[in-house]
Amino acid sequence: MKLQSLRDLYVEELRDLYNAESQIIKALPKMIKSAYSTELRKALDEHLQVTTRQVERLERIFGKLDESVKGTTCKGMEGIIDEGKDMLDEDAPESVRDAAIISAAQRVEHYEIAGYGTVRTYARQLGYTDQAELLQQTLEEEGEADKKLTSIAESRVNIEATRTTS
Amino acid sequence: MKLQSLRDLYVEELRDLYNAESQIIKALPKMIKSAYSTELRKALDEHLQVTTRQVERLERIFGKLDESVKGTTCKGMEGIIDEGKDMLDEDAPESVRDAAIISAAQRVEHYEIAGYGTVRTYARQLGYTDQAELLQQTLEEEGEADKKLTSIAESRVNIEATRTTS
Repeated sequence: MKLQSLRDLYVEELRDLYNAESQIIKALPKMIKSAYSTELRKALDEHLQVTTRQVERLERIFGKLDESVKGTTCKGMEGIIDEGKDMLDEDAPESVRDAAIISAAQRVEHYEIAGYGTVRTYARQLGYTDQAELLQQTLEEEGEADKKLTSIAESRVNIEATRTTS
Repeated sequence: MKLQSLRDLYVEELRDLYNAESQIIKALPKMIKSAYSTELRKALDEHLQVTTRQVERLERIFGKLDESVKGTTCKGMEGIIDEGKDMLDEDAPESVRDAAIISAAQRVEHYEIAGYGTVRTYARQLGYTDQAELLQQTLEEEGEADKKLTSIAESRVNIEATRTTS
């Protein structure tokens, strides 16, 4: 890792996010399969489609920067996905498992919100206006996905899960 | 792990956050020591004080639930802190290192925002109004800490870091 300038840090963080997205693309299908609620499956499935577009945006940015398209292992996302998998392996009633899936997915979203917020700010400060716009699009999509999950959690899934306490 | 009800999941996630907070309390001093900007050091130091109060809140909640005060390893936070340490170990100009510290700290904040948002919602749905209020206080503090870091990043640290590109 070479961090002699903000541009170096920017490229390094883009590589972190590029790897994070690959990890998400691998992990989401298992989460979708494990989800019970149709609404939740649909939301996660849509997010999988959105994620592939976000990967393409990062590839366009690497092209603009004349940097090779590659990731560096994102340990943060590894940890988040790992604990999500542990939850999925537990024996739990369907509605409780759905609540756990939403919890894991929102940790994933928030990692991305922090990461994309950071690189969007770097891009602006480095004067890479078009790249900042691409990253802003992704940031907004992540924010929307997070809100959608909150709305599912509050409206349906958790209400059902509380019934399992009686 | 026993996840037969939303209450089980709630306790499990509180334990995850309790461990995450302990990890943060261990990691923050090194970040504070490595930070160059006085403003950043001050913000991180204040957050360390806030974190100890958040831990006390979790302990009060465990008491209310009549559950033992203990954490379970938070793999997500382990990964996030681990990648933050990797950044700190790099040789970088002061302003670039400060930008990297803010980036790592915001990933930490967002993990907590996702985690506390989740348990706050569970507490509300389980009818634990007083616990939901305690968790809401922490959630708001995390949101404020995140905004404070954004403001430092946008106003000062990164502007200096861009100078290193010339």
